[in-house]
Formats: sequence, C-alpha cells, structure tokens
Amino acid sequence: MKPYKEMSKEELILLKEELEKKFAGEKSKGIKLDMSRGKQTTAQLDMTMPIMDVFNSGSTLQTQDGFDCRNYGLLEGIPEARKLLGDMMGVPAQNVLVYGNSSLSIMYDSIAHSMTHGVMGSTPWCKLDKVKFLCPVPGYDRHFKITEYFGIEMINIPMTSDGPDMDLVEKYVNEDEAVKGIWCVPKYSNPQGFSYSDETVRRFAALKPAAEDFRIYWDNAYAVHHLYEDKQDSILEILSECEKAGNPDIVFEFCSTSKVSFAGGGIAGMASSLANLEYIKEFMTVLTIGYDKVNQLRHVRYFKDMDGISEHMKKHAAIIRPKFEAVLEVLDREIGSLEIAEWTKPVGGYFISFDAMEGCAKAIVAKCKEAGVILTGAGATYPYGKDPKDSNIRIAPTFPTAEEMAAATDLFVLCVKLVSVKKLLGEALL
Amino acid sequence: MKPYKEMSKEELILLKEELEKKFAGEKSKGIKLDMSRGKQTTAQLDMTMPIMDVFNSGSTLQTQDGFDCRNYGLLEGIPEARKLLGDMMGVPAQNVLVYGNSSLSIMYDSIAHSMTHGVMGSTPWCKLDKVKFLCPVPGYDRHFKITEYFGIEMINIPMTSDGPDMDLVEKYVNEDEAVKGIWCVPKYSNPQGFSYSDETVRRFAALKPAAEDFRIYWDNAYAVHHLYEDKQDSILEILSECEKAGNPDIVFEFCSTSKVSFAGGGIAGMASSLANLEYIKEFMTVLTIGYDKVNQLRHVRYFKDMDGISEHMKKHAAIIRPKFEAVLEVLDREIGSLEIAEWTKPVGGYFISFDAMEGCAKAIVAKCKEAGVILTGAGATYPYGKDPKDSNIRIAPTFPTAEEMAAATDLFVLCVKLVSVKKLLGEALL
Repeated sequence: MKPYKEMSKEELILLKEELEKKFAGEKSKGIKLDMSRGKQTTAQLDMTMPIMDVFNSGSTLQTQDGFDCRNYGLLEGIPEARKLLGDMMGVPAQNVLVYGNSSLSIMYDSIAHSMTHGVMGSTPWCKLDKVKFLCPVPGYDRHFKITEYFGIEMINIPMTSDGPDMDLVEKYVNEDEAVKGIWCVPKYSNPQGFSYSDETVRRFAALKPAAEDFRIYWDNAYAVHHLYEDKQDSILEILSECEKAGNPDIVFEFCSTSKVSFAGGGIAGMASSLANLEYIKEFMTVLTIGYDKVNQLRHVRYFKDMDGISEHMKKHAAIIRPKFEAVLEVLDREIGSLEIAEWTKPVGGYFISFDAMEGCAKAIVAKCKEAGVILTGAGATYPYGKDPKDSNIRIAPTFPTAEEMAAATDLFVLCVKLVSVKKLLGEALL
Repeated sequence: MKPYKEMSKEELILLKEELEKKFAGEKSKGIKLDMSRGKQTTAQLDMTMPIMDVFNSGSTLQTQDGFDCRNYGLLEGIPEARKLLGDMMGVPAQNVLVYGNSSLSIMYDSIAHSMTHGVMGSTPWCKLDKVKFLCPVPGYDRHFKITEYFGIEMINIPMTSDGPDMDLVEKYVNEDEAVKGIWCVPKYSNPQGFSYSDETVRRFAALKPAAEDFRIYWDNAYAVHHLYEDKQDSILEILSECEKAGNPDIVFEFCSTSKVSFAGGGIAGMASSLANLEYIKEFMTVLTIGYDKVNQLRHVRYFKDMDGISEHMKKHAAIIRPKFEAVLEVLDREIGSLEIAEWTKPVGGYFISFDAMEGCAKAIVAKCKEAGVILTGAGATYPYGKDPKDSNIRIAPTFPTAEEMAAATDLFVLCVKLVSVKKLLGEALL
C-alpha cells in the first residue's frame, strides 16, 4: 500500500468508498470492546491472590521491631515497607514515607497542602496571584485534573523519546517564579512508554528554579513495570542526582503497588529529602494518626524484597505483553506504510501513544465508538482536555484479552484509515 | 474523711506532710504506668484476629453486585460497606461514603477542601478574613489541631452532661457569619463520655446558621462503644432530624472501625445529605480513584451486619469495662468525699474526664510523671492546649490492665490530694 499522501483524489475517493463499506460491515457485527482502561486484567489480579494467605487468625502482625501494626502509630509507615518501596524507587528507606492505597492521593494532598500552607515555609499558593505548573504532553489526565482543580495554570511542554523538552523546562523553571512544579512520569511514561534519558534526569536535577517552592513531581508509577526481560529501560535515580547537583530538596517522588498487587488494595509511598519529609510529617500528623500498617505488613511479608517484586512483575509481563504485541502487530501491518499516523512501541508501562494526522483524533474516537470500540477520549492526555493538534489517542491494551485487543485494533485502524482519507479529501470529519 | 475545705490550716499542714511522705515512698518504687493512651489493648486486637481468616488465595473478592474489589473503581465505597457503616450511624447506605482507614483524615480533607474551595459553592475559606469554629470543651485534641493548623479561630463552648451549651451555640451560629462549623462527639464524648440529649440534637438540627457554608462536624466515633449491656446511651439520628427541621445539608457525620476492628487497619466513613455527597464526590474523584475496597469487603464479610458488630462490641466491653471500674472505684473510695475534684462515670466510649480544683491540673500531671505515671498533658482537651481553669485531665483506661489502672489511679489520687492540699494552703504548685 502506498502512502495516502501520494494518492490522487480519484484513488482516495475509491478508497473511501471501500473503507466505508467495510466499516458498515464491521458496525453491523455489534462489537463491544474497550481499549480505554489502564487497569489490570482479571488474570493479573488472580495471580496475586496468594497475598491473601499471608495472614490468618494465628498471625503475628508485628514489624521487625515488634511494633503492633493493628494499633495506632508509626506515621511514617512500617520500616520494612519503607524499605520495600524505597527499593522499588532506588532510594534508602529513610527517604520514604508509606501512605494508604493511592499515590494519586499523596499528590493531591501535596498540592492541596501547598495551596494552604506553601512548601517549607513559602507563601501559601492560594495567596498568590498566579501559580503555574509545567505539563509534559501528552501526559496523565489525573495529574492535570489535580492542578486544574486548584486553578493552577498549566503549560504544555512537548515530550520527546528522551523526556520533556528540557530547553523549555529550564526556561520556564529558571525564569518564572510562578512556576511551582512539573508533572513527570519518568519511566515508561503515560501514555508514550518513554523513559527519560540520563541527560534529561541530570538537567532536571540541575534546575535553578526562580521559585524557592518549586518541586519536581516525579510520579514513578511504572518503575518496575517492564514488558520484556531482555529489553528494559532504566533511569537515573533522581534524589541522589538532585543531591549531587546541590538541589537536595527539589523533588517529590511517588510510587505505588496499584499495578503490582491490587489497584483497590495496594500501598503507596513518597520519597524525598529528609528535610522535605520532616516538613511533610508536620502536616501528616494533623491529617492522620497513621495509615493502614496491616496492609503494609501484608505486602512486605508477601513480596519480601526487590527480588520478590521482580519475579512477580515477570508474571504480569507474561500476561500483558501479548496484548501490546497484538496491538502493535495490527498497527504495523495495516497502517505501517501509509504515513497517516505514528505510535510508540513501549517496552514497559501500561499504554501506547498514538498520533493521528492533525485534526483527526476526535473523529477517530467517535468513529470507533460508533462501531462499538471504546477509546480514551481524544484530548484526555492534555491539560484542560485540549489537544491543540487533535491528534493524540491513548491506547490501553491491558484489560481485554489479546484476541479482543487484536479485534479492537482492527476496527481502530479501519477508522484511522477512513478518517484520514476524509481529512485528505478535505471533508468534514465530525 | 471530711472535705479538705473544712479542714483547718493545721490539719492541712499535717495532711500535707503525711501525703508527701507517702508520695516519696511511691516514687521510690520506680512505677511505670500510662493512663494517657486512648487505644485498644492487645487482648482487644487479638480478639478481632479471625478477620484475617476471611480471605485466602481461593477467595472471590467481589461485591454482591459482582464488582471486583481488587481493581480501580467504586469511588463511594462498596455498597455493602456503605450499608454496614450506615447501620452503625443509623442512616441509609445511600447517605454514606466509605473511605480509607481514618475518619480523622476525612475530617482533615473536609476542612482542607473548604479552605481552598468553600462548601457547595461558597467562598473558599482561605479568601475570608476570619473563619471560626465552635469547640465544645473539654474535647478531642485532634479536632482542635486540624482547625488550629488552618488558622481557624476556635471558640470554647462549655459542655454539660446533655451536650454543648446550646444557648451559646445558637447565639454564635445564628448570628456570626464567620462561624463555619462546630466539632461534636455526640455519643460517649471524648473525654467525658457524655451523650447529647434529644433536645440538644433537635436544637442542633434546628440551627439557622448565618453562614450558608456552616456545617456540624458530627464525629460519631463511639456510636457502638457501650461498656454495659444494661446501661446504654442512645442519641437521636442527626441526619433525619436535620431533614425534618428543613436543614438537610447542615451536617457531616463521621465514623470508623478503629476501635471496632483495628486502629491500623479499619475502615472509615462519612454520612451526609445526598446533595452534600454529590458535591463531595466531585472533589473525591480528583483526590483518588478509589479507597481500599479489599479491606472494606473484609470487614463486611467478617462482621456481616449490625448484629455482628453488636456482638463483637460486647467482647470489647468485657475487656475494657473492668478497667473503667477499677479507676472509678479508686477515685470514689479515695477522694469521693473530699470535694477536691469531680469526674464523669461513663457507660461507653474510651475516656473519663476528671476536673481537679482550678489551677491544679498541670501540677497533678507533673506530679504523676515524677512518680512514673503518664497522663494526657493538662490542657490537651482544650483548643490551643489552653485550659482556662487548668483543671481538666483526660483519663484513658483501656490500654493497661485493670490491675495497672488501679495502681496508676492510686498514685493519681495521691497526687490529686497532695496538689489540692498545697493549693488550699496557697503554696506554689509547680
């Protein structure tokens, strides 16, 4: 098949008729498939069920230091859970606080607290005329929702396969005092699956922020979420890089076991400098008497250590890898040579990022829906839900089966082709 | 023994010498006891351990509607946990949201959110010159810490055995637009163990707040925490009373299982009008994808229903009742007729409230500490840690054994006597 751009108008019209006929046929099948949900599939959840055997009524629910996890106390989390999450992030246990089941909540609390109390003694953000956040795009919609909710102005920063455009990041952070943070998913980024290069991490660590209360919000959500044993990304550990660069307090790092154990029953943590943690504990002690230490202990007893986590993640990979491959195989086979789209080929994480021709994403999502395939809403990967080029679509392959993903992708590429042809013909798309 | 006030100076001096000699003897024994901790004792925690048998690797972790608790979703909590906590509070499941392990965190989030976003569209509190909260005193220090942390001015409202002084409450709430809330522990109050009378609850429900965003923060922490089977307080259900009074949105109610199952691993909930809950869910959906539904399901499977909770609470009562009785027996025997103190005789909850002669609380706490008995800091039961009369001391009988509590109370009453005598003699106390 030759690239669409090289086709004559007559060829495109013929192609459109053919694709529309095919679409009508697919639509009549009454397909119902979902490529939108970045969550574990049942086989993954089942695979973790032995964690439920860790405790029974005869268990001793004490930490290694003899602290009773069933009672109040241990605001920072149990020491062994601090170590386990620390190992996942590559930082010492003393730099980690363990919270409840959601890293998103920790991020929300961080922003909410900065609004009312600032960061380490800075002016509360709610007292400032303007607060801005940098948002590498496309990115994670839940990050953007938090900053939008607090009325924080979001600035798009283009992503590359090495991470955010660091020239722009440096310009904004080092020159504009209103810029208080940047949302990062440094490893297997959502939605691209990109991992920041060593140079990117070092440039982050070496920022000279105009604002004393600027922080990097380093959401290391996919730290251990490799798809392959022989192809694995690794990123530089940001806390130590920041310390080396003389910026020890510049980063808040987050992680969770939502896609390691259970999304509804995992544990989450935050890593930062000791100075930041001391400050955070001051407000944590107002917010709670302590998080769920029983579940922290359950996780430690089950996974034991980083080797346990790694072995477990291989089983996850075995379940979801075929789904990624099914999607990529169809994309490559069907539209690989048509020059109407680009997409990422991640070796980890939970998503594939797909870029259609400009102005086509909404129409593709709508067309898919018409035939029974649900995609993440176009624009969701941008602040305010607004993709300026209307081209990005996030594909989430993990939840359906590999066969379902292949079928869904078949329909998806058909819609991509059809919308692209109409675009080239100058027709209305929606 | 005749009341100290009726003693002559000579009698008091002789008594003081005798008490000081006794104190020196006690002090030399090297006692180490703690009457300060309002937490479950190990026997209580052990008694709940069968909850750990509820799940094993073969369990199906689905709600009654077939929702998988191990995955993302169900922001409101699982339906059966909403019902269970609703039953504990006496409200329908649809009026309940289930959160993580801490009701204190829900209260913190409520206040923090009101600071940045107001309540149901009202002006964010951080934009106001003055925000005030009413604080029935003595009360729960953790409540006061939250409002203090956000710079909210706290106004003391005297407690009676029927609840807060409602004349004062009505005056402040109905006349001062800056008054945005009141902290209440309506049943077996902390620290008195008082339960609000029907008239008090009805007067709360009938408030006509000057501020549209005024809410009653109804911390029903001890809803099911009776000490006796034949002597039990009950309070009117506040949500329906508010609805009857034409004030459906005026109350946020909180509860948890921290003193039913585990303080480190229970579940917590909030009850309110449907309009309030709709509003709250708007910000909950920014804050989290969902709380720990696995633990919610574990609690429901274990306790089953309100009967299960009630049976379980009888076992708690059997363990802690003798401790309350040990304290009260010593107090009554040793200082019952001396007219130097008053104390409550609760039939539920976790505390006894003790009022020494004015200006004596700090000295008594210090004296006890000198001899190895730890009490909650004097003043802790008041906003800003300031008891204007320096007379209230909170006694927490649950954690030590009954024998330890008796021994600790023996030393406590000795200190109360000694400090009271010195006070009557006009001597310096600290």
